[in-house]
Amino acid sequence: MAQTQQSRDLAAARSKATFPVVELTRYVHGSDEKIARRRELAQLIANDPVFSNDARQVHNLCNPPRIFQIGLSRVQDVKQGLAMSLRLYQLKEEHALSQEDFLMCMNFVDELLPIGLHETAFIPIIHAQGTEEQAKYWGPLAEKHQIIGCYAQTELGHGSNLSELETTATLNRDTDEWSIHSTTFTASKWWIGGLGAIATHALIQARLIIDGKDYGAHGFIVPIRSLKDHRPFPGVKVGDIGPKAYGGFSKIDNGFVRFENYRIPRENMLMRFAKVTKDGQYIKPPHSKLAYGSMVLLRSQMIRGAALTLARATTIATRYTTARRQFKVPTSRKDEKNPALETQVINYPMVQSRLFPWIASAYAMFAAGSMMQTMYENMLSELMEGDVSSLAEVHAISSGLKSTCSTIAATGTEDCRKIMGGHGYSYFSGISHVWSTYVPSNTYEGDNFLLTQQSARYLLKQLKLATTAPEKVTSYSKYVIRTIDQDAFQAERCAVRDVSDWLRPQVQLAAFEHRAGRLVADLGLAALQEGVAWSDLNLECWRLCHAHSQYVLTKSTIDSVAAAREQGLSSESIAVLERLSSLYALHTIHASLGEFLEDFFISPSQCQSLRQQIKYLQESLADDAVGLVDAFDFSDHYLNSALGSADGNAYQRLWDAAQKEAINQTEVVEGYKEYIVPILNQHGPAKL
Amino acid sequence: MAQTQQSRDLAAARSKATFPVVELTRYVHGSDEKIARRRELAQLIANDPVFSNDARQVHNLCNPPRIFQIGLSRVQDVKQGLAMSLRLYQLKEEHALSQEDFLMCMNFVDELLPIGLHETAFIPIIHAQGTEEQAKYWGPLAEKHQIIGCYAQTELGHGSNLSELETTATLNRDTDEWSIHSTTFTASKWWIGGLGAIATHALIQARLIIDGKDYGAHGFIVPIRSLKDHRPFPGVKVGDIGPKAYGGFSKIDNGFVRFENYRIPRENMLMRFAKVTKDGQYIKPPHSKLAYGSMVLLRSQMIRGAALTLARATTIATRYTTARRQFKVPTSRKDEKNPALETQVINYPMVQSRLFPWIASAYAMFAAGSMMQTMYENMLSELMEGDVSSLAEVHAISSGLKSTCSTIAATGTEDCRKIMGGHGYSYFSGISHVWSTYVPSNTYEGDNFLLTQQSARYLLKQLKLATTAPEKVTSYSKYVIRTIDQDAFQAERCAVRDVSDWLRPQVQLAAFEHRAGRLVADLGLAALQEGVAWSDLNLECWRLCHAHSQYVLTKSTIDSVAAAREQGLSSESIAVLERLSSLYALHTIHASLGEFLEDFFISPSQCQSLRQQIKYLQESLADDAVGLVDAFDFSDHYLNSALGSADGNAYQRLWDAAQKEAINQTEVVEGYKEYIVPILNQHGPAKL
Repeated sequence: MAQTQQSRDLAAARSKATFPVVELTRYVHGSDEKIARRRELAQLIANDPVFSNDARQVHNLCNPPRIFQIGLSRVQDVKQGLAMSLRLYQLKEEHALSQEDFLMCMNFVDELLPIGLHETAFIPIIHAQGTEEQAKYWGPLAEKHQIIGCYAQTELGHGSNLSELETTATLNRDTDEWSIHSTTFTASKWWIGGLGAIATHALIQARLIIDGKDYGAHGFIVPIRSLKDHRPFPGVKVGDIGPKAYGGFSKIDNGFVRFENYRIPRENMLMRFAKVTKDGQYIKPPHSKLAYGSMVLLRSQMIRGAALTLARATTIATRYTTARRQFKVPTSRKDEKNPALETQVINYPMVQSRLFPWIASAYAMFAAGSMMQTMYENMLSELMEGDVSSLAEVHAISSGLKSTCSTIAATGTEDCRKIMGGHGYSYFSGISHVWSTYVPSNTYEGDNFLLTQQSARYLLKQLKLATTAPEKVTSYSKYVIRTIDQDAFQAERCAVRDVSDWLRPQVQLAAFEHRAGRLVADLGLAALQEGVAWSDLNLECWRLCHAHSQYVLTKSTIDSVAAAREQGLSSESIAVLERLSSLYALHTIHASLGEFLEDFFISPSQCQSLRQQIKYLQESLADDAVGLVDAFDFSDHYLNSALGSADGNAYQRLWDAAQKEAINQTEVVEGYKEYIVPILNQHGPAKL
Repeated sequence: MAQTQQSRDLAAARSKATFPVVELTRYVHGSDEKIARRRELAQLIANDPVFSNDARQVHNLCNPPRIFQIGLSRVQDVKQGLAMSLRLYQLKEEHALSQEDFLMCMNFVDELLPIGLHETAFIPIIHAQGTEEQAKYWGPLAEKHQIIGCYAQTELGHGSNLSELETTATLNRDTDEWSIHSTTFTASKWWIGGLGAIATHALIQARLIIDGKDYGAHGFIVPIRSLKDHRPFPGVKVGDIGPKAYGGFSKIDNGFVRFENYRIPRENMLMRFAKVTKDGQYIKPPHSKLAYGSMVLLRSQMIRGAALTLARATTIATRYTTARRQFKVPTSRKDEKNPALETQVINYPMVQSRLFPWIASAYAMFAAGSMMQTMYENMLSELMEGDVSSLAEVHAISSGLKSTCSTIAATGTEDCRKIMGGHGYSYFSGISHVWSTYVPSNTYEGDNFLLTQQSARYLLKQLKLATTAPEKVTSYSKYVIRTIDQDAFQAERCAVRDVSDWLRPQVQLAAFEHRAGRLVADLGLAALQEGVAWSDLNLECWRLCHAHSQYVLTKSTIDSVAAAREQGLSSESIAVLERLSSLYALHTIHASLGEFLEDFFISPSQCQSLRQQIKYLQESLADDAVGLVDAFDFSDHYLNSALGSADGNAYQRLWDAAQKEAINQTEVVEGYKEYIVPILNQHGPAKL
């Protein structure tokens, strides 16, 4: 593509970076080998006709090509999802991809696919919750996708409240079978990914009933569609739940299913933990919380997912606002060399104050994601040795971070679109697809509001521990100990004297600790009041949970920068990471300033210097913004954005995308004779 | 539809309303005659096959019917938009609808249509900016839609900065013509509603050039497509800009156009204000700000638009959270009669604290919308008499409110969707369509961030006036006078002693006045600093503008309730309106608490009582929530929501909607043989 003012502007901004970009790519993605592999796999997807963005290369299935894949009918959409699924399996075979690489490829396809939950839920759960024998039988069938499974938990009437699921599995001793039954209308399974069109089997969560006794929800492998002709078995009513909000999830077949006393063998119950013997005896699982493991894993992974999502949106917004100029307005960052040109949008302090904190948040979430992964792996090896002591903390932190980070990523992604102004609302901006598929993560895997109770409940326990056995308080909760001496705690004040003090990590951490400490102490008192039900305190839990998560995020990013320094990152990279870390912390404090002011912890003059320091940090990041998003290392194919491509040719690409659109392939639009002519002639033709 | 637990729950909640619902419908929509007419027109649209939601009645064009109208190709989508446009014109004729009624019908169609901007921009601007002669010529042609126009201002390279538009209109004296030309690539007109497919004419904003002298942007009527065959004229390159974000604006043909020295007669320039004579003389308009009028009108109307949007979302969320039960959890609102049932979601304090402030915000915006309309009408009659004195205030307030209210409505609508949990992400929830079409309003008609500068600039002028001629300070800015005596102003404190004091309108207004006063004084000081450019203060302007708009909203709603009391509304209705007004005010204070704490205006103990009072208000509204949203008087057809229908049968309707979906019309999905069979057999068939 030709050089334009926009591409020159982006290149010039890129050249200003004060640090070696590759170092921060390593900081985000790991070793050079990992980066190289990641790029190879991204390229593998980008080069394949089925996944191509380029109209000239498209496979017949992808016509219109990827960028135009909105506007298909639901039937076509799902068909395309199936085509993509098949092609992915073929690539796996052709390139002998490991499962890890295969999953990364699926990620680069950038659509939830009909086989998605087969790979990420059905297979892992068979191994996690099936006996060795079951894993041996079902595992290979699923791994060779000779059967396709899905995970069916949510029902029409119950999502969050698992204990009230209405699907039942009743033991029939005579035949040694379970009878799966949808006891009510609201017992219909709903939202089940892969069940609408492709699944042959479902892992059904149903209440296990023996001799009229209800043992609660357990997992069962249930055949849904015949392997002969894919038709549903008698007793099974299955289908697709229809389109999703905002055009999201368009290629995946979320389905429903109802059962009418449908029989499956007793052995189809997953029996690694709880078991039911041939004579109908129920054997309890050894630990009630062991099933938490996979939930914790999923939530932990979602922290990095949030980081990647926001990183992608900030990449697009940063590049586009660098390429776009609007108004000749003097700002503190004048373009001395080009006085005749308008100001680059990214140089407005207002834009920096909206955009740069999102870049900083993405980096903070990468740090928290790494921390969470390490924490999970440590817990896993402890669990292997029968030590469940860290499960509660890992569960609480991952729940809290999932809520906070997925909220940040959804809000930030849509805000990045708005920062781009009018053109941001074009589908070709490339952000709409990201957000519409990401935003339900605020609700699934634990609703972001409900989840905060887990975290708050855990912190209350730590508060109790602080009085009885303070040495047992876990590392991320140490601050609760300080609240015990109420007078000393209430006398705590922010140590900032000079505006530069805000840059000290200890000052930042102290602020977050104090705020979270106050909220946990307040919640503790409120919970003691007579007549107060726990659910009456949901709002307080929510506030506390986010305060704690923000503390964890701040601590993670500070620790992560310290570790990077020890690993020998250049001082230039460390300097920019420190500025990002401080911006995350200070911007976050300012966004909830009332909570820091309410007990005088921060003073009015400190408010002023806080705002001043935030402004300094934002200005100091201006030269590095493009480098910071380049470091995220997204390919143009993956970004799929006319406005955020690496070369900055935003206007040209927006124009080109429109020209390829179906409606522009004829000179006069379809519907002209049927509708436009009658409109023009309703009152007779014009006499001009 | 059968009685279900859900419909019984909604009916029971409805019966609890403490006030006559019809009174609040009048409060929102006006006289009984207006309400009746509104319902008639809604019914007219609902009954017409072209606009039907019901699969059994659908016109061939509407198959799949309305609720499934997502998932059409872009060509089909626009075709459907054209079909709807034609049908609307036929209805206008068949029912002899007034223009006002016609526009209301267009609103009930609930899609932006290809003829939308013809009706709401092209026709009004011809009358506003054309001479009498021009209005006489073009007006009837447009009103009888013998020509279809659009309004073409935005370009690829310029949206906000009109003074840098790159399309030119150069006078050719010899032929007495303008030559319209796209001088650069970025001069391409872009985003123009109706231009992609239907428009025959465009009202083009182009820089007027005579003898090399540039007179800035002016309006020209430019023929685009032939009335004979609809083909673009030579010299005109026109087309559709493609799909929008989130599936929004799907039925409208936003277009682009480029001109290659394209000739139009000199008389096609709109010459009510500026004129160009036959001999090439440019005559300046009498007042530079007269053109503001239509901008102010549009923004004023957007306040009521914001109210209607949020009202619709809260209607859906309130009804669904009333119908849905989840968890048997004791709350302060126990369901004593049904101890066996789970708790209604709306009874959780967390849900109330998220949902009820949005209901209160909708009511506040209705009040501000009425205030704004009156203010605009007063200004208009003054303008008729040559009095421009109130233009600046009306412009500032409408700009500020547009920014604040459209932000509230977009945020609130998406939050209502999230409040609904998992099912909220179904397209059938009915909120996605509202939000995806509404959210660009945060950017168009003045970007919500840029707009705040207008308002802040105006307030700074009022601040200057406060020292020189305080009697001239306008009514909504009186508070700036108090800031002049700095000592007295800094000594101001919130008068709350008891929790009930928060309910006093004077206490609420004083808080908003003080906060906005402090911010305007701070901005005044900052603007005086050496080396500070205005654009460096954008963030401060933004903060001030919202503070002022929130004050205006609070004052409007307080005034509106007082007026309703005088008009004889029942004490029950007044009581609930007062609670809503207080909830809006107090929730808004709490959401920006830091700004009220920073100079000690509100004390720590007042923070506690503020939260307490908000909780009381929320609890006190619980019995009225359903009545409050019923009062908005939306029909089921217009809501188009499986989850928010008036009868509460959320689950049944969600199920029914899915059953009608195209993918469920075959037992085995399309693509089975091509993709699913090869997936299942890639490693040979399963041996089960």
